[in-house]
Amino acid sequence: MEQKKATMIVFDGDLDKAMASFIIATGAAAMGKPVTMFFTFWGLNVLRKEQYVKVEKNFLEKMFAKMMPRGPEKLGLSKMNYGGIGAKLMKKMMKKHNVVSLKELIEMAQDLDIKMVACTMSMDVMGIHKEELIDGIEYAGVATYLAEAEDGNVNLFI
Amino acid sequence: MEQKKATMIVFDGDLDKAMASFIIATGAAAMGKPVTMFFTFWGLNVLRKEQYVKVEKNFLEKMFAKMMPRGPEKLGLSKMNYGGIGAKLMKKMMKKHNVVSLKELIEMAQDLDIKMVACTMSMDVMGIHKEELIDGIEYAGVATYLAEAEDGNVNLFI
Amino acid sequence: MEQKKATMIVFDGDLDKAMASFIIATGAAAMGKPVTMFFTFWGLNVLRKEQYVKVEKNFLEKMFAKMMPRGPEKLGLSKMNYGGIGAKLMKKMMKKHNVVSLKELIEMAQDLDIKMVACTMSMDVMGIHKEELIDGIEYAGVATYLAEAEDGNVNLFI
Repeated sequence: MEQKKATMIVFDGDLDKAMASFIIATGAAAMGKPVTMFFTFWGLNVLRKEQYVKVEKNFLEKMFAKMMPRGPEKLGLSKMNYGGIGAKLMKKMMKKHNVVSLKELIEMAQDLDIKMVACTMSMDVMGIHKEELIDGIEYAGVATYLAEAEDGNVNLFI
Repeated sequence: MEQKKATMIVFDGDLDKAMASFIIATGAAAMGKPVTMFFTFWGLNVLRKEQYVKVEKNFLEKMFAKMMPRGPEKLGLSKMNYGGIGAKLMKKMMKKHNVVSLKELIEMAQDLDIKMVACTMSMDVMGIHKEELIDGIEYAGVATYLAEAEDGNVNLFI
Repeated sequence: MEQKKATMIVFDGDLDKAMASFIIATGAAAMGKPVTMFFTFWGLNVLRKEQYVKVEKNFLEKMFAKMMPRGPEKLGLSKMNYGGIGAKLMKKMMKKHNVVSLKELIEMAQDLDIKMVACTMSMDVMGIHKEELIDGIEYAGVATYLAEAEDGNVNLFI
């Protein structure tokens, strides 16, 4: 019997919440569940390339882009971040306990064929272009999310 | 075959999270799913009337009511709000990309017969009266939410 | 017919979100649903004993432990906490309206045989030891969560 899907809306884009999303997602995929992760609003920052990508933006878009973290290494904690110190300490403690980093979890997710989808409406609103996001992801809107969630039993908003 | 329900607990009451809730909710309803949104704690602020409503309140309730945003136009962002500037910029960018406003999404939700329920326990705790909330909503407790969620497959906590 | 499970990932560990988790969990259990709550990251603070427990920790772990709230009485609100004043006022208003406290909800959850599981990976990362957490809980990882969620229809991330 085919397994039901798992879907995750990754909304927050904090280091700790993104870690939780990918730990659940890769765990579910490893157990044979088809998994779709839908990145929306601040969650898009998880998918941003680390390097600066030159694209045409208006003033507001430039401002948003500058203030938002560029990729997994730059994300802060949802609590006790203290300007990035909290995130640094958390990463140190994860390394000590051999917990794989968010960057490795993302690669793992791609190896496990987890479908990673960037929300095109959020991209428009926040002025994020495809060139700024990592390769190997898909682009879609809420209807695509709902179609996947319809076949799922573990549907989380994170 | 009757479609399974979608339910959402709208807890946070930030502009961005409320937008996400209503985009998913109206999307699901447009696809024919029966949708129930359950507004609790800070989520109640989404349902508040914009205008001040005179009701009997004790000191604490008055204080809470004054500090919490009154309706969709007053909500802040969950991140990068900067005293409301972030929310203003976000709304500007949404308008530019023809994304409907939260206020319009709420009207759309009512047109689509989405069941919007205010959590009576949270109303008690936060001292919010029925007269302060918009028309066309229902009032119930956690048992009602659970009964709806039981028939759902897409049950989100936002 | 056996009822489907309800599962909750308690991630945030704020007073208001923890209250919401336990109100939903005890409500579901009272209706006969098997319920599992999985406490991870900041959610672990909900399960901490109030009293200080002497355990071997390294410098970073000590720092984290000191800065994080010890048990349900010490948790803050996710919004409008103002250094704990908000949480105090909220508790006062809950008492006035005969809403049971978080501490009582936790006891109720245990009486109702709700399975409360502490995420061992998070415990490792945050340097929290079993001796620091309340009695009557279980210890497991993400695979256990996923196995429970597989049999559930109400699976929430809070």
